This record gives sequence, structure tokens and C-alpha cells, in this order.
Amino acid sequence: MKKPLILVTNDDGITAPGLRALIRFMSEIGEVVVVAPDSPQSGMGHAITVDDTLQASKDDKESPDGALVEYSCSGTPADCVKLALQEILDRKPDICISGINHGSNASINVIYSGTMSAAIEAGIEGVPAIGFSLCDYSWNANFEFAREAIKSIVSEALHNKMPKGVVLNVNIPKMEADLPKGIKICRQARANWKEKFDKRINPRGKEYYWLTGEFELLDKGEDTDEWALANGYISVVPTQFDLTAHHAIQELNSWSL
Amino acid sequence: MKKPLILVTNDDGITAPGLRALIRFMSEIGEVVVVAPDSPQSGMGHAITVDDTLQASKDDKESPDGALVEYSCSGTPADCVKLALQEILDRKPDICISGINHGSNASINVIYSGTMSAAIEAGIEGVPAIGFSLCDYSWNANFEFAREAIKSIVSEALHNKMPKGVVLNVNIPKMEADLPKGIKICRQARANWKEKFDKRINPRGKEYYWLTGEFELLDKGEDTDEWALANGYISVVPTQFDLTAHHAIQELNSWSL
Repeated sequence: MKKPLILVTNDDGITAPGLRALIRFMSEIGEVVVVAPDSPQSGMGHAITVDDTLQASKDDKESPDGALVEYSCSGTPADCVKLALQEILDRKPDICISGINHGSNASINVIYSGTMSAAIEAGIEGVPAIGFSLCDYSWNANFEFAREAIKSIVSEALHNKMPKGVVLNVNIPKMEADLPKGIKICRQARANWKEKFDKRINPRGKEYYWLTGEFELLDKGEDTDEWALANGYISVVPTQFDLTAHHAIQELNSWSL
Repeated sequence: MKKPLILVTNDDGITAPGLRALIRFMSEIGEVVVVAPDSPQSGMGHAITVDDTLQASKDDKESPDGALVEYSCSGTPADCVKLALQEILDRKPDICISGINHGSNASINVIYSGTMSAAIEAGIEGVPAIGFSLCDYSWNANFEFAREAIKSIVSEALHNKMPKGVVLNVNIPKMEADLPKGIKICRQARANWKEKFDKRINPRGKEYYWLTGEFELLDKGEDTDEWALANGYISVVPTQFDLTAHHAIQELNSWSL
């Protein structure tokens, strides 16, 4: 049987250990083409480059992690996917896998996530797609324990048909010694970030800010991604790019417009 | 009665004619505070600035368009809203209005839209919010004909309670002489962009790309924003930031995970 063609990308950049681990895992189940940003793109949301040029460089060295070929791209994660699908790949990939992100993209973080924007871009273009994130921001995080779970989720997605208009947002709890307890299909927990801006004065006397914040969970449900992660499970949230709040249409039709 | 406090922002930057028109319209129904990017931020999606500093400058001159006060900010539209809510405003605004964007944010464009990312950020933080866009990319577009419709939508949003977890994505057709036929509550049309990368060679012999593309409507429904706009109506899509595809959860639970 022909091996599946797997497009791999991320938002932490082509040198990130999470991406390198993902390339190794994916090379065990398919032919991997990597098109990833040449520098970190965290917090880029679904940004695309419209006012600047894009460059893509093919790595002439053999991939140390088993990919067929690797490209680094000057753009955002969504740019990488667009460029891969339109210019780099000569056929449609069987699946696009983004990550493994260094840090959680569960709950409201999906909105700010470059990792998920890459997966969503692939989904919009009709390619089954999954974003993987590990709830550990450390550059030297341990990804190895998640190998079998990630391969299992990708294999199932290749074997089953991905629900239409849906991409998967997979988050993996940080584990010390044990393995995750299992995999749970979840909904996105309600939450937001309580921002705190760290205000400072620059050497020329002008104020500036660093954005910092605390995650605030507003949801006690036991069917959410945050609950699953807090209880040692891998969370899988089916995520859509039709943002219509269908339930609100009737209510808005009662407004005097 | 106390006038409502209206936070106004956009993604085309503080000098954009669409923003200036919006400030004038909003000053007729409330007290307006402007916190807008100091430079164009189109295509920024829901980007936030995590790896760099932010600056906000208060304009000491009187607003030519009737705002109480105007700030320009070095960040993205979502940064502007975060900074406004946490640092600049001394009370929670009654509503956040983003726009008027120079160009459509209907259909799948909502995903890439800085205008809508500002509104969504406000919605996440519990502030009712609306993004307005005019389907005319011209810098010298005519916004004036939309004055009454925009004021009517904002007044209704202030008067009614915004549905929970929902922000409004309002798109206005480009009109030559007539007024829009009316306002329709819609769903987001299914569509995508067929990318074409314009490949060029730089003076040093290296390839680079410009992202271009053609909008491809995949949806013949007469309840969509694209249908409304094509038929001379203003479209209002209730837009949510819970991205969970609830209908897909059952199907995913049948996978062998």
C-alpha cells in the first residue's frame, strides 16, 4: 500500500524540538514533507502575509529526522500551509499535522494559536488536519512519551474520514513518569486570560508594556479539554472554521433592524 | 441618561478613513475612546504580541472626529483591545466597535480578519462587540451612506442584550447611488481562497513570492452573508469564539482511540 503523504508544520519554527519529534513520529507512518516557519511565530493567530514577500528555502541536507524534504519559510504558519499546498507539493497531502507546540493550545488558547491556525488553514483547503500541543512550555520538554498516542490519533484520522469542516485540536498533558490515562473527545472549555500589562520606562523616558496574564478557567464541566488535561487525559476537540453562532440567529431576528 | 462608553478600534490603522468615519458615527450616540494600531495590521488574524514590547501614545490634540480621546498603539488589533480594557479605560466600555474595514470580512475572511479579531477579543473579555466592514478596498471609499445603518445596529446592540458568547460580523455592500435594501441576519457562507503565488526573482537571484488569490464561493444558500451582500443587503453574522464542532463529538467517539 502506498504510504500517506504527511505535511508537517508548526509555529515554534523549524528548529523546535517539538517539530523535530513530530517529524520522527510521522516518518514512521508516512512520507513526510516539512514546510515550517524559519523563526518562532507564537501568538500569530491566523495571520497571513499580505503586505510583504515570502521566501521558502529547501534544505539540501538529508533530514536528520526522516523527512523526505524540509523547507523553511519566512511567513506565518498559515502562509506555510498555503505555500506548501499551492507551490511546494505536487499532490494534495493525505493529512496536515501541526506541532508539537511547546505549550497548551487548549480552551480559548485555540484562538491565539499559530499551531492551530496552520491546521485550520489546511482544513479550509480541504485537507484533513490535526494540531498537537504539549502542556509544557520548556524548550527541552519530553515529547517521547506521547509518540504512540500521537501516531494512534493520526492513524485513526487517516483510516476514518475526518468530519466535514472540522480539524482536531489535540492537547497532551505534561507527564513526569506515567503515561496519559487515555484520550478523551472534548469540547473547548470556557476561559479567558486576565491580562496584566507590565509597564516599564525605556532609557529615553517613554512608557512601554509587556503583555503578561493569568489563565482564568470559567467552566466546571467534566466534558472539557481543561478537565481532561487536569485529570491526566489527552484532549481532542473537534474545531470548526464556520464561526456562525447558529443558535443566536433567531434571537437577532427579533431585533428592530 | 448617561451616554454609553464606546471603545473604537480597527486594523487598518488610526489614520484610515473607515476608522475616522466610524468615530464620527459613534460620537453621535456615545462617548468614544479610540485605541487603534499606529500602522495597518490587515491579515493579522487573532495575533497578539508576546515576544515584543507594546507602546501606546495618547494624542494630545483634540479629536477632529469627536472622540473623547485617541490612542495609537504599536500592536495588533487584539493587543489594542487588551491594552484598552486593562490599562487605558477606567471602566468597562458598554460596547466595542471595530472598523470600518476597507474591504469585505464576510464568509471565510472572518478567520483572517484583524477587524474581527479586535471584536472577538472584546467578546472573550465579556464586552459586547461588533466589527463593521465595507466591501470596498479603496482608501477613498464612501462610508457616509452607511451612517444610519451602522448607528441603528449599534443602538440595537446597546438596547438589547448581545447573545452570550457572540460578537457580530457586519458587512456592508459597496453602493453607488442607492442605499442598501436592508439588514439581514445570516450565516457565514462556505468559501475559500484559491491561492496563486506570484513567484519572482530578487536582484540577488533568489526566488520570492507574493500571496495573491481568488475568492471561491462554495455555497449557494440564500441565508448566507455572501448572498445578502450580492443582493444589496447588509449582512450580520453572529460569530462565536467557542470553536467546538459539537456535532462532530459523537462521530469522533466512534474512532478507536
